Amino acid sequence: MELLESWLGKNSDVTGFKEDGGSIFKELALFQDYRGLPTLKNELAEFMEEIRGKRVRMDPNKIVLTAGSTSANETLMFCLAEPGDAFLIPTPYYPGYDRDLKWRTGVEIVPIQCTSSNHFRITKFALEEAYKQAQKLNLNVKGVLVTNPSNPLGTTMSKEEVDIVINFCMTKLIHIVSDEIFSATVFSSPKFVSILEALNEGNLQESIAMNLVHVVYSLSKDLGLSGFRVGLIYSNNEMVISAATKMSSFGLISSQTQHLVSNILHDKKFIKYYMKENARRLKKRHEMLVSKLKRIGIQCLRSNAGLFCWVDMRHLLSSNTFEAEFDLWKKILCDVKLNISPGSSCHCSEPGWFRICFANVSEETLQVLMQRMKTFVGGIGHRNLICFSRKPMLLKWAFGLSSFDRQADR
Amino acid sequence: MELLESWLGKNSDVTGFKEDGGSIFKELALFQDYRGLPTLKNELAEFMEEIRGKRVRMDPNKIVLTAGSTSANETLMFCLAEPGDAFLIPTPYYPGYDRDLKWRTGVEIVPIQCTSSNHFRITKFALEEAYKQAQKLNLNVKGVLVTNPSNPLGTTMSKEEVDIVINFCMTKLIHIVSDEIFSATVFSSPKFVSILEALNEGNLQESIAMNLVHVVYSLSKDLGLSGFRVGLIYSNNEMVISAATKMSSFGLISSQTQHLVSNILHDKKFIKYYMKENARRLKKRHEMLVSKLKRIGIQCLRSNAGLFCWVDMRHLLSSNTFEAEFDLWKKILCDVKLNISPGSSCHCSEPGWFRICFANVSEETLQVLMQRMKTFVGGIGHRNLICFSRKPMLLKWAFGLSSFDRQADR
Repeated sequence: MELLESWLGKNSDVTGFKEDGGSIFKELALFQDYRGLPTLKNELAEFMEEIRGKRVRMDPNKIVLTAGSTSANETLMFCLAEPGDAFLIPTPYYPGYDRDLKWRTGVEIVPIQCTSSNHFRITKFALEEAYKQAQKLNLNVKGVLVTNPSNPLGTTMSKEEVDIVINFCMTKLIHIVSDEIFSATVFSSPKFVSILEALNEGNLQESIAMNLVHVVYSLSKDLGLSGFRVGLIYSNNEMVISAATKMSSFGLISSQTQHLVSNILHDKKFIKYYMKENARRLKKRHEMLVSKLKRIGIQCLRSNAGLFCWVDMRHLLSSNTFEAEFDLWKKILCDVKLNISPGSSCHCSEPGWFRICFANVSEETLQVLMQRMKTFVGGIGHRNLICFSRKPMLLKWAFGLSSFDRQADR
Repeated sequence: MELLESWLGKNSDVTGFKEDGGSIFKELALFQDYRGLPTLKNELAEFMEEIRGKRVRMDPNKIVLTAGSTSANETLMFCLAEPGDAFLIPTPYYPGYDRDLKWRTGVEIVPIQCTSSNHFRITKFALEEAYKQAQKLNLNVKGVLVTNPSNPLGTTMSKEEVDIVINFCMTKLIHIVSDEIFSATVFSSPKFVSILEALNEGNLQESIAMNLVHVVYSLSKDLGLSGFRVGLIYSNNEMVISAATKMSSFGLISSQTQHLVSNILHDKKFIKYYMKENARRLKKRHEMLVSKLKRIGIQCLRSNAGLFCWVDMRHLLSSNTFEAEFDLWKKILCDVKLNISPGSSCHCSEPGWFRICFANVSEETLQVLMQRMKTFVGGIGHRNLICFSRKPMLLKWAFGLSSFDRQADR
């Protein structure tokens, strides 16, 4: 964040509505083209190419700007599905999808059950099972939605996994939505393989596949600009681009912010430095959390991206149930003062997994939290829930924050 | 616009993410509370009170922020109606409603037919007729939506009209949505009477009426900040506030812009000056257009608000049909190079009315346009459509711009 702050310090003209010595305030204030600033789309296309190691060519004309990825995901559902249609989503998944994808569109989510037995990887079998399940429920399956890198797992999809999803969807002739909002948070190997890259490698550029694949992106995670609401849909499907552009009227990005972000992204030297430095810091913080948890007997799913770890606390449960998971979550909140996301909120099929963020706290705070966690784990079983018997409102509030009710979820 | 530009010149800290000497960039960049900045809601409430001559007390907690009024209107439809339900809207109305209110919500619009016979005023009879029409169509009427001041008429609703709408809706127990986005453009008497003021005067504050009345507002017209996407819903209905706040996730305002606008509105002295000066300039421009049109035999509906006139060109039609209206529109576009909105695009029931904007052109341009208009009117009947027989694409593009397809509509 201080990297961007320092950039702003050196580029005060940009925030001050000045360009080439003149004011562009009027132009931006009155800006009404719902297709957005062309310069912003150009810069976003180049930024997305950079993140994909320049192995994919992005066309600015295939971008639809949206007020964050929340809006991008909902818009895609409105474009691709009718009320009562379904999308298949691998578990565990971002809790906000239950609101973003379903609420106003009437679309249903059918989970693709992934488990710890293969490190929560997507398999052809799991995809077929989910499809059958949807049919049993009389739902018309319109597509598969994946998050790559995954939230909450913190893992990138392997090339094999991406290919499995592509092959499955192409056989069934259904859509793929790939939510790639964490793509610049990959801090170690294996490298990130975008669905667009896999399409290229599969020589599917010219085929029907192109019209069925859609990418969601935003700057909320990769540049930490969640407050600025800069999201987008990238699609090869002209009908989707056309409909989504019209729908973007319901959630346009402030022209002031379009201008600022466009200028930040235009500084390629800064962006390269930012991405490298960001990955270095995430890697360090990630290693710190993983090693500290390991020392107290807690394992994390091996991961290489995102701002969080997917943590295995099954051995700390009093029983193999989601009630016990909820109890453990309450205890950690109460004793460690650490608000993590229980797997159940992400529709995980196995009790005992939790998402812990490492990017939103300082190293010092993380140290303190891990020390408390050590004490907690050492004394587990000897505690009770006194703190909450006296504070039911606090508990309700905290659970709301950690799981369902909050924009900040991700 | 240059008033705001000059304000920005004197307040560079605000755009530069500085406050009390420190940087607030991080705070704004990471801002994720979908309820918005409390300071912005406070300032908006005070601004709305100022516009209403302080005759209404506005509560910031009853405000839901949205990315423009487009989003506010759609969100209200999602909150108040189910697919197949209907809202009654007086004609002529803003063409964008057909998209904003109906497209994704499945809500239907039934026109309340207003005519030139009483200067397009809303009557109890017209309301009842529209209600009956909806019933005939098997539609469940959920409410009435009015724009006050009216777009495209440029008139404020009289206290009597507002009361007629309130009484009608309270008898039927249906909602009222009052779109008041032009409320600070009132440049001469009679004064603007907000639905909220009428409720107060009718001593309906404590009644069921309070839960049925909702106001839509934005800064796109009153401050000319359409590019910044600052809109809101104001409602006394707690369920609407709660649901709309959650829905606002799909169209949040950039925190950068929330901060800037909040600071502009905080400067009460500037805001008072801006409003006075804005009204003065609108009045001058309005008088110029009206008098110049009058000199060439064209009358405008008497109006006191908005950025446009509702112009009677019925005598210039070759026949009393919408085809003739379309022909006239084409001729004016071609010969005068003036792109105005034909009444048919606003669902006006009488051919020959047009909306002409006077605020988006300079006085010099307006002079030139009126001179051309004079020539055009003088020679009417002697022209043909040569220019378009050669340029069908241009025509298609221009008609799209003027009526249906464009965010800039309003």
